[in-house]
Amino acid sequence: MIAGIDIGGTTSKIGLVLDGRVLRQTRIPTTGHADDHAFAQALATAVRSLLADEGGGSLEAVGIGAPNANQFTGIIEMAPNLPWKHDVPLARMLQDRLNVPAVLGNDANAAALGEWRYGAGKGYDDLLVVTIGTGVGSGFIVNGSLLLGSAGNAGELGHMTLAMDGRPCTCGRKGCLEAYVSIRGMRQTYAELANDLDLLKEEGVKCIADAAHAGDRAAQRTFEETVHWLAVGLANAVAVTGPRRVVLFGGIVRSGDLLLAPLKKAFHSALLNIYQGRVDLTVSALPDDDAALLGAAALTTIPMKIRK
Amino acid sequence: MIAGIDIGGTTSKIGLVLDGRVLRQTRIPTTGHADDHAFAQALATAVRSLLADEGGGSLEAVGIGAPNANQFTGIIEMAPNLPWKHDVPLARMLQDRLNVPAVLGNDANAAALGEWRYGAGKGYDDLLVVTIGTGVGSGFIVNGSLLLGSAGNAGELGHMTLAMDGRPCTCGRKGCLEAYVSIRGMRQTYAELANDLDLLKEEGVKCIADAAHAGDRAAQRTFEETVHWLAVGLANAVAVTGPRRVVLFGGIVRSGDLLLAPLKKAFHSALLNIYQGRVDLTVSALPDDDAALLGAAALTTIPMKIRK
Repeated sequence: MIAGIDIGGTTSKIGLVLDGRVLRQTRIPTTGHADDHAFAQALATAVRSLLADEGGGSLEAVGIGAPNANQFTGIIEMAPNLPWKHDVPLARMLQDRLNVPAVLGNDANAAALGEWRYGAGKGYDDLLVVTIGTGVGSGFIVNGSLLLGSAGNAGELGHMTLAMDGRPCTCGRKGCLEAYVSIRGMRQTYAELANDLDLLKEEGVKCIADAAHAGDRAAQRTFEETVHWLAVGLANAVAVTGPRRVVLFGGIVRSGDLLLAPLKKAFHSALLNIYQGRVDLTVSALPDDDAALLGAAALTTIPMKIRK
Repeated sequence: MIAGIDIGGTTSKIGLVLDGRVLRQTRIPTTGHADDHAFAQALATAVRSLLADEGGGSLEAVGIGAPNANQFTGIIEMAPNLPWKHDVPLARMLQDRLNVPAVLGNDANAAALGEWRYGAGKGYDDLLVVTIGTGVGSGFIVNGSLLLGSAGNAGELGHMTLAMDGRPCTCGRKGCLEAYVSIRGMRQTYAELANDLDLLKEEGVKCIADAAHAGDRAAQRTFEETVHWLAVGLANAVAVTGPRRVVLFGGIVRSGDLLLAPLKKAFHSALLNIYQGRVDLTVSALPDDDAALLGAAALTTIPMKIRK
């Protein structure tokens, strides 16, 4: 059995994974702990409690997916959305507490591994997985391995610049894909198109989708623009790594008629001719509740490569 | 000894390579042959003649770099700039004639392998090589392997879309990096800025550089815009594959004060913060005359992976 842990900004999920299935899961708050050691302790306690509920069984390893995680060092590096502003060596902290090997990885890479091992990317040696939520994350499988890059931080498709002098992004630069395609980006597009900045804070993607279905033109155009930017961003990623399949994950991509259907069309017309017919686009096949845990568990299947 | 062959639109170069040095080289016209078989025959004859001049010695393999070459199949696929509009299985044709293994690869991938094995990329397991000429080619080394993609055609950074509804590109789409950064692109930028479309046909990059040095504002701005687009394109590539080093190749990048110096600055400010200080930018260390031959020879060092 492998323990999968998914660290989120407010809540962290912990699950026991066996043969690509989540046997049992729980969650604890990410915030409110005395310090990072207390948080690591709470995670370890949760793992032990799940094991006890499962009636024992042997734990092989721990896989942890987190924002701003460095796969090479096992450290969460100055994550802007987590309570700790210093480096947190969470892999080592859990390894010490649970006495099994622990691997820490970027949450988007974890999602990619989860899709590759257990989901819609199974059997694809060249794969791109894009998760769309508050931000946009991505993980690339190339030549049958996770693409980590020289410093363990490759795969930041969300921060590909698409609009010169475009919208400010949370990263401090301008015109990133994420500034247009994420939940935050769609909300901003809607507020701009509807000419009502109050919408910026209120509207979820579900509300925008409902409005689009009810005939609201600004909401419909919000989806059209989102599709446009995402199609170009995906086509650009294909031109670099040449995947056979692209898998999308996240609530937004479930808006089928508003997003996926037009996206497939826009993606294929955005592709360079040599990739036409050689790459398909699909959505995650994993249950929403389990995906992050399966991905975190899948991190343990790749070697940690600590480099200087 | 390895025979390196570089197929160009008008001329093809043939060289003998040993230990990363070109011992001897010659060239034949690419055009004017009765058919592709006659061309393959002429290449084989040139290789034999070089071997004879070298006083014998044993040939181990042949590496061929060509536009529109598919590494997986050994076939040149419908190359718009070569005389044959059908598929040419050049690897097999030379293997049959010279009785040694032959590997065919994309010319930009060959350049990347050449820099990686023998040039400015030596020792870098995560590397990006960008060649800037009439077009823009790129080859990525990731995790210590050439990135080929699922269909053998990854690494088309020149066709990353950067300008929405931008300039028409030779690929039939709009706003590609290559439409702005190549020799052709710079010439167009200069013609537009100088408001003189006659310049489109005449000006080489050397002339634009001379004009810039002489104080011509349109020529200076041409370099500034080229630097801007290239910096963003490179930063976008870094956000996908996370290389430790970027190597630039081609006549344009030798315009040091006009291009390389401002590019280094623009590149670093275009990078996402997590890559700051983790990737450097440099120019090819290989002699212009030898680079393509060394690259073609380096193709033989990677396995051909024929896939369905």
